[in-house]
Amino acid sequence: MNESLPEISPVLIVGAGLIGASIGCALRAKDIEVYLQDVNPKHAELASERGAGVVAEPSPDEIKLVVIATPPADIVWQVQVALEKYPNAAVTDTGSIKASLARDLSGAKHLDRYVGSHPMAGSAHSGPMTAGPELFADRIWVVTPSYDNPDWVVRRVLKLGQSTGARTIVRDVAQHDRAVAEISHLPQLMASLTAAQLTDVPDEDLQLAGQGVRDVTRIAASDSAMWRQIVAGNKELIRAQLVNVRRDLEELIASLDDPQAVTQFLEKGRAGRGRLPSRAGKDPSELVSITAEVPDEPGALAKLFDLIDEAGVNIEDVSIEHDPSRSIGYLQIQVSVSQADQLRSALKGWGR
Amino acid sequence: MNESLPEISPVLIVGAGLIGASIGCALRAKDIEVYLQDVNPKHAELASERGAGVVAEPSPDEIKLVVIATPPADIVWQVQVALEKYPNAAVTDTGSIKASLARDLSGAKHLDRYVGSHPMAGSAHSGPMTAGPELFADRIWVVTPSYDNPDWVVRRVLKLGQSTGARTIVRDVAQHDRAVAEISHLPQLMASLTAAQLTDVPDEDLQLAGQGVRDVTRIAASDSAMWRQIVAGNKELIRAQLVNVRRDLEELIASLDDPQAVTQFLEKGRAGRGRLPSRAGKDPSELVSITAEVPDEPGALAKLFDLIDEAGVNIEDVSIEHDPSRSIGYLQIQVSVSQADQLRSALKGWGR
Repeated sequence: MNESLPEISPVLIVGAGLIGASIGCALRAKDIEVYLQDVNPKHAELASERGAGVVAEPSPDEIKLVVIATPPADIVWQVQVALEKYPNAAVTDTGSIKASLARDLSGAKHLDRYVGSHPMAGSAHSGPMTAGPELFADRIWVVTPSYDNPDWVVRRVLKLGQSTGARTIVRDVAQHDRAVAEISHLPQLMASLTAAQLTDVPDEDLQLAGQGVRDVTRIAASDSAMWRQIVAGNKELIRAQLVNVRRDLEELIASLDDPQAVTQFLEKGRAGRGRLPSRAGKDPSELVSITAEVPDEPGALAKLFDLIDEAGVNIEDVSIEHDPSRSIGYLQIQVSVSQADQLRSALKGWGR
Repeated sequence: MNESLPEISPVLIVGAGLIGASIGCALRAKDIEVYLQDVNPKHAELASERGAGVVAEPSPDEIKLVVIATPPADIVWQVQVALEKYPNAAVTDTGSIKASLARDLSGAKHLDRYVGSHPMAGSAHSGPMTAGPELFADRIWVVTPSYDNPDWVVRRVLKLGQSTGARTIVRDVAQHDRAVAEISHLPQLMASLTAAQLTDVPDEDLQLAGQGVRDVTRIAASDSAMWRQIVAGNKELIRAQLVNVRRDLEELIASLDDPQAVTQFLEKGRAGRGRLPSRAGKDPSELVSITAEVPDEPGALAKLFDLIDEAGVNIEDVSIEHDPSRSIGYLQIQVSVSQADQLRSALKGWGR
């Protein structure tokens, strides 16, 4: 399908929040014409100022694709309105749950022109202020056609995803909802469950917090209103996942005195973690993390990267940490085991 | 205490695994004399080759500090041997649990010269092969003196931690074990519990995995043998934590149909997460993440950082992701909201 995806210009985006406005920015960067609508005219204007498209009433016949990027509760009626109003358009939405939406839409007119989609990107922010064309770069964008959809409708929605820089994956709605329950909704609730325990921890104990607890709880900072709606939309599959967790947790508590049972539990976790497809295409255990001090002054990072580059070292991953008590940062550089010593010699003398 | 910490050279390190050898490398980088011992002579030799110190029998009287960096099961007898054998030395260990150790040591001779410590650093690796002087840079190093310790003993152990680049924090053993149960051991087991659920997920569903599940489960890849020993050493405090989690999980399952209860649960998670002291000294919600493509060719990263530097943009955090299907990486750059547009214009044209 990839080689010859169709033209989708002009696109109408309904809902100019972070997702809608970012889609608009990404499409505009590819010179695709974009119209914006929002129940809050200020949102649409702001998104337009950020380069997400124009706020205007398009001629209904010319619209090739409508993207409903509203909050979950408004998707059903907005899809129905769009299918009526834009007779030549494929219509999609960007909601996180697909099966309950399909149920709520069943019986609607022109439903063959609707294909669900789920761009798996977001941010701790909402609203158009922080929208940008790069939000979907390298992200997964799931497209959920049904057997009623003609080919041209599905292809326009695939083209939408790919135009934003995302990687499109096709699933049916049931597969999609099961997958997100397993690999998105459950981890989200587990992060919240772990973070919730921190509310009772004395301040002085929190000072010992390292990178581990930060990673495990990072997504617990997400928007509660959004996640409440996601949980409501997929609660039966989520409940089944949570019941499995409860079973494993009961077992762990009951067998905490049995070193062999604890080892089995830990090994099951290692096995599950090991099943995640590696983004870097490299086994993390082949990588070594080396830390370099970065003085908090302009150009220090660029100088450091030049140094690493000159040494011929291939960086696999980097991250920065700051010491708030001193004006200094630490760059953690991941390299393959075979290049670790090369990097160490390159860094000798750096920052001393 | 900081200004005038005492000389600790020469140091004897017993146990030349990742932790012991890395301590040796860090001390050698500060020109502190280091002797190495390991029950496995090959480990000691390898560590020595990596610059962690010399493999030789020191004269017992001259040793100022002994560091027991063996596996947990050997710490008690090694501490006792060291206290007997090195009459002028402070003795410390690097184990993760302190209260059970203190109990097992009670009644030992010369115990006033022993102070526990816990460098909170590690890696998916073990053994001296991947040891390096930077392992403890910017990490927390907890020192757990008791009222019996003379000042000079505590000060030598503080000097040890600071000589490796770590940030030392003083706690009593009970405080230490409680804190690590809350902010290290529980998150570790929650990561394993979450990752364990992935063992039953179909391959095709795993393809939808994003950054969230990767973060939540990252530390589940840790060494099971080590964590089994940590769990055994702190199991009563860990059990209490797990029982709290079970209570919250029961409540969540029972109230999954009640949007208000779900919101309360999510808000409690947000509140807990919000209590973690920020490393960057900046509220993550003030930061925007912007992604740039990085072609997989030498110097590309250095060029990109030069570009960002010239634009006067201050990078708060960075990370790299790779697309295994194409020869390309994605650099995610975190900047403050106020500099996001500056960075976007700087990146215009980059990689196109």
